[in-house]
Amino acid sequence: MTALFRPGQRAPDALRDVRITRGYTLYAEGSVLIEFGQTKVLCNASVEEKVPPHKRGSGEGWVTAEYGMLPRATHTRSDREAARGKQSGRTQEIQRLIGRSLRAVFDLKALGERTISLDCDVIQADGGTRTASITGAFVAAHDAVSKLLKEGKIAASPIKDHVAAISVGLLQGESLLDLEYVEDSACDTDMNVVMTGAGHFVEVQGTAEGAAFTRREMDTLLVLAEKGIGELVSLQRRALGLS
Amino acid sequence: MTALFRPGQRAPDALRDVRITRGYTLYAEGSVLIEFGQTKVLCNASVEEKVPPHKRGSGEGWVTAEYGMLPRATHTRSDREAARGKQSGRTQEIQRLIGRSLRAVFDLKALGERTISLDCDVIQADGGTRTASITGAFVAAHDAVSKLLKEGKIAASPIKDHVAAISVGLLQGESLLDLEYVEDSACDTDMNVVMTGAGHFVEVQGTAEGAAFTRREMDTLLVLAEKGIGELVSLQRRALGLS
Amino acid sequence: MTALFRPGQRAPDALRDVRITRGYTLYAEGSVLIEFGQTKVLCNASVEEKVPPHKRGSGEGWVTAEYGMLPRATHTRSDREAARGKQSGRTQEIQRLIGRSLRAVFDLKALGERTISLDCDVIQADGGTRTASITGAFVAAHDAVSKLLKEGKIAASPIKDHVAAISVGLLQGESLLDLEYVEDSACDTDMNVVMTGAGHFVEVQGTAEGAAFTRREMDTLLVLAEKGIGELVSLQRRALGLS
Amino acid sequence: MTALFRPGQRAPDALRDVRITRGYTLYAEGSVLIEFGQTKVLCNASVEEKVPPHKRGSGEGWVTAEYGMLPRATHTRSDREAARGKQSGRTQEIQRLIGRSLRAVFDLKALGERTISLDCDVIQADGGTRTASITGAFVAAHDAVSKLLKEGKIAASPIKDHVAAISVGLLQGESLLDLEYVEDSACDTDMNVVMTGAGHFVEVQGTAEGAAFTRREMDTLLVLAEKGIGELVSLQRRALGLS
Amino acid sequence: MTALFRPGQRAPDALRDVRITRGYTLYAEGSVLIEFGQTKVLCNASVEEKVPPHKRGSGEGWVTAEYGMLPRATHTRSDREAARGKQSGRTQEIQRLIGRSLRAVFDLKALGERTISLDCDVIQADGGTRTASITGAFVAAHDAVSKLLKEGKIAASPIKDHVAAISVGLLQGESLLDLEYVEDSACDTDMNVVMTGAGHFVEVQGTAEGAAFTRREMDTLLVLAEKGIGELVSLQRRALGLS
Amino acid sequence: MTALFRPGQRAPDALRDVRITRGYTLYAEGSVLIEFGQTKVLCNASVEEKVPPHKRGSGEGWVTAEYGMLPRATHTRSDREAARGKQSGRTQEIQRLIGRSLRAVFDLKALGERTISLDCDVIQADGGTRTASITGAFVAAHDAVSKLLKEGKIAASPIKDHVAAISVGLLQGESLLDLEYVEDSACDTDMNVVMTGAGHFVEVQGTAEGAAFTRREMDTLLVLAEKGIGELVSLQRRALGLS
Repeated sequence: MTALFRPGQRAPDALRDVRITRGYTLYAEGSVLIEFGQTKVLCNASVEEKVPPHKRGSGEGWVTAEYGMLPRATHTRSDREAARGKQSGRTQEIQRLIGRSLRAVFDLKALGERTISLDCDVIQADGGTRTASITGAFVAAHDAVSKLLKEGKIAASPIKDHVAAISVGLLQGESLLDLEYVEDSACDTDMNVVMTGAGHFVEVQGTAEGAAFTRREMDTLLVLAEKGIGELVSLQRRALGLS
Repeated sequence: MTALFRPGQRAPDALRDVRITRGYTLYAEGSVLIEFGQTKVLCNASVEEKVPPHKRGSGEGWVTAEYGMLPRATHTRSDREAARGKQSGRTQEIQRLIGRSLRAVFDLKALGERTISLDCDVIQADGGTRTASITGAFVAAHDAVSKLLKEGKIAASPIKDHVAAISVGLLQGESLLDLEYVEDSACDTDMNVVMTGAGHFVEVQGTAEGAAFTRREMDTLLVLAEKGIGELVSLQRRALGLS
Repeated sequence: MTALFRPGQRAPDALRDVRITRGYTLYAEGSVLIEFGQTKVLCNASVEEKVPPHKRGSGEGWVTAEYGMLPRATHTRSDREAARGKQSGRTQEIQRLIGRSLRAVFDLKALGERTISLDCDVIQADGGTRTASITGAFVAAHDAVSKLLKEGKIAASPIKDHVAAISVGLLQGESLLDLEYVEDSACDTDMNVVMTGAGHFVEVQGTAEGAAFTRREMDTLLVLAEKGIGELVSLQRRALGLS
Repeated sequence: MTALFRPGQRAPDALRDVRITRGYTLYAEGSVLIEFGQTKVLCNASVEEKVPPHKRGSGEGWVTAEYGMLPRATHTRSDREAARGKQSGRTQEIQRLIGRSLRAVFDLKALGERTISLDCDVIQADGGTRTASITGAFVAAHDAVSKLLKEGKIAASPIKDHVAAISVGLLQGESLLDLEYVEDSACDTDMNVVMTGAGHFVEVQGTAEGAAFTRREMDTLLVLAEKGIGELVSLQRRALGLS
Repeated sequence: MTALFRPGQRAPDALRDVRITRGYTLYAEGSVLIEFGQTKVLCNASVEEKVPPHKRGSGEGWVTAEYGMLPRATHTRSDREAARGKQSGRTQEIQRLIGRSLRAVFDLKALGERTISLDCDVIQADGGTRTASITGAFVAAHDAVSKLLKEGKIAASPIKDHVAAISVGLLQGESLLDLEYVEDSACDTDMNVVMTGAGHFVEVQGTAEGAAFTRREMDTLLVLAEKGIGELVSLQRRALGLS
Repeated sequence: MTALFRPGQRAPDALRDVRITRGYTLYAEGSVLIEFGQTKVLCNASVEEKVPPHKRGSGEGWVTAEYGMLPRATHTRSDREAARGKQSGRTQEIQRLIGRSLRAVFDLKALGERTISLDCDVIQADGGTRTASITGAFVAAHDAVSKLLKEGKIAASPIKDHVAAISVGLLQGESLLDLEYVEDSACDTDMNVVMTGAGHFVEVQGTAEGAAFTRREMDTLLVLAEKGIGELVSLQRRALGLS
């Protein structure tokens, strides 16, 4: 395929159609289905009144994440990690990234000694599941925090800023925003960028799948990512009724 | 609570509102979201052109199932089995039951040397997830078989009859059909029944949670289950456009 | 084989020769070797002065079971579960069944905050190991309770009734009691029934291995099971010197 | 306790009462219950017509062993290794010792490309389970070999000599043969010795539990072990009807 | 601490003293001890004449890596991963990064159907173990390739370019090259950069540990990393006798 | 090979060149690289102010060991135990032996409620890694104890005597001291001996790999081991500056 013909005639700098559905399930303190085109991730935020050992007695809370993919979220069925008895390196890498990204915008002191766990489960995967997870998990975490505020368990929100993420990539010399699966597979370089609402970087993970990339290419990709994340933050705000 | 006041004023012999949505995800050969009230299970059927070792060279196929529950499908978050590194005894028991139930209506010879894997993942749990899984998995398997027929991979359907399942229980002496979570917790006896479209039994699993139950009580429960499964088979037929 | 010619000319409604040997090993608080023909299971009851987390501080005790099969209990050697590093789904299913069955006749409040663990280890397997385990475990648990009473640790027995179990099955249209291995393999339907001394049901688990079974067939099987369990309860009473 | 008063007034150089019961279970090619006083180990020999990877195509067979202890073989219940999900270091050490000891008297070439697996399961433990396992496993392996000979699968026995094992120890300066549990716990030095029928050493494993031992003490222990093993070999011969 | 006073008065843009020792152990096809100040990593390259399943029959080889840290490589002892029974998420993340980085400069076709495994074991850890691993593993892989060339197993080197890696970070607004442990812990932003000898990027992984970082800060860090990697490539060349 | 021509013309009763390097790494309380010819083991002693459960509240400390081998310590690469998810039986056997050997010369009361963990990691393996581990671990433990004394955490040394270990073996009828890998593989009998500085035995583990060995052969081997251990104790003393 050539970048000139992205699926659905999408422009190189255009996001896929992004939908954020709050209250997707009943029981979680925050429950968000986020869709980037055909990619669908359910992000549930759970509040537990306890913290992991390294935070006990610190007066600080914790924000953590787990990630999973349903066996048939993809074109061919993959093994169920629970049945295999361990999470893959890829899964662990992604859930560590989600956790770090969310903690970047949390004031753990203001959260108090409680944990917000973000479960990001991929229902359908068409590229960009980790960036969708971060973007959706923020909204779920926000809802969980609103519930804590409403219940009077915390006095002020521990959320300092928005956080959202997007993938960018180089395909045949062209920079593309928000890669879907066929693009991701064909790309020379794939970069995941996590930024705050203020436009600062939380994580940048660029990988040359084929040829190594130049500094100039990297710059182009970062500009594209900034644009996309700006749009995602607006979508988060709209979904949360903040704008 | 008393049985006279089932949530939503449901009659003792009434099913919850059951919805069967086919084509819920894109990639699986059969993909069904089944809902029994607030219980929601995604049943994906995957066809793989290989069989497990005990069937190799036999000319016969295999039908199997795996079951999982998203960590926050329930009121309080439960551990992710993939992270804990093993499936619970309950999970294994349920996925073995789903597999046996589906195989009961399959002619494995007619399926040919291929496997249909049924992944039943609980998105939201309000009681009856194993019976919803069986009922939904049948529809997903049916869609996967239709695809095999359409592609000319098999000449005739290996499906011999419908299979569906329901729970029944005794609460304060009253027999109830299709228990939701609060009822299940309060029940003295809980019975899961799996039957074919022809009205024969595939599995009967009755457990006295409180007082042991009498033969007469068992008879009442079986009658109730027969009624419910008859309705479920009709719903399956309607969802599949067979009636 | 035909049901008319059961091994050893056994009548369709006859139990195999059942032997219950108390005090089989020295150290356990209750130690019973139970034999159903060639099936031999060692049931050891251990009393521990602690309870699992979900019972701590409740004033109630716990009764639980573990099940295992020696690698060469069967015709061909099977893998040792300890060496494979996990218990099979079948093993977990069985040990959960044994635990539930025993708890059905125990007043956990009267037991006090202690645990009775029932280890059922199959020395030789010729069908019916789970039902033999339940029937033998009851006798071992009874001995353990007698020891607690004798030592003055509890004032009254927490055992409310007997519990015993048997398998029944349909082979070529005939109902058979207490299936041995060759019968079990050939059966269309296999049912395990657990009942109290009062003749009430604790568990009914019927599975159609071949053709699904009718309500009428189920009724016949239940009657046969009731007969067998009545005899087993008498044997338990005799072994315990209660009659 | 003092060595002068061994339990049952046993002489320092006397074995416990040793009983070897062949044909203890039905299905194994060799099945032996061996008892050293209260220690009871079931040794089953299984013949399988395959070899592990490192012997494939070599024309040689393999002899291996697995060891287990029933959870309530001991005074207090120990965890079931299958439930814990791994074998302890002690278990692995013992099963490796049993395997090496048996291989020492086997001509693997003469066995042909097949495996004899020895399952040694401790029913009751009162010290000396590993030495009882080796001594009993030899008899079980001998029976399995006799079966192979009778069936014409091998032309000549691959067994070159007897092998048997015993423990010896130092307690308050006195050398004791065949330690039972209370003696083993109190001993300063504990030594397990494995020898052939010809009186040669296969394994010597001496451990100072308390004070380190002298060369002279070691010599005394070895003499005692030679005596005991001589008696065990006679008992093996008698059990096998060879003398 | 302030960046103005780096340990040992190191300049902000200076590498620690880097030492590359080839032939550190005897048996590996390539064996390199790489030291960045007090950080010491042993990088062993092993050639195996087989490939993982996804490359079988492809005519292509594979390059992979495993990473480990000795329990007392750090200030306080950490658990041994082999004893815990699994590798941490961090370990898996690092070994995946090392593998990808090396593959970026390998022509897998030219390698032929064989695998080069890079074992990077940290003897002593003072920050930068993953970047030292990549830089050292390249030299070890180069030695392994030279051996293959010398033995005539391959006609031309599959190595297309150098690859090396360094960490950079922001501490109190100042950009620092090659962070040691105390700096790494105090940093707001930590970035690991992997580049080729041609000066192109293979991986960029930047993480805001404290405050999110700006685009301008990122640019400064990338410039610093380019400088450091240029020096590392020179050191690799000198160690390999290529310049 | 024949024993007359040991590699490097070594005399049958000669140790390989033994080097003991203290302070090999920076952070451990004791850190020793011990080399027996080409065998190189890093022995790190860590002091932790806690004890395992069975010693809590006893007023006694604990000494324990873990053993590992780098994947390419040997001629061909072996699997990484952390990646396989479990330690082999051999590894567990060795680390249990090291722990017992060290505890034999420790007064656990005098150590106080703290643990000394000895991590023995094999960098290069050419036979005798377990005996080198014990010999080196003693020196590392001694350094850790000296640090505790210097810091005033204990008043008197809990070390009662030296402990060292060596292998001996029979090759073609000749007794050899300190087997290297090619000798070990060819030997009929292999014996590992652990002794105190006073010349008493802590462990004797002799195994007939080929023909069983006689009492006379055993005596010869023990004399040889005594000689070797005497020399090792002198080397330990010299390394520690005690003589």
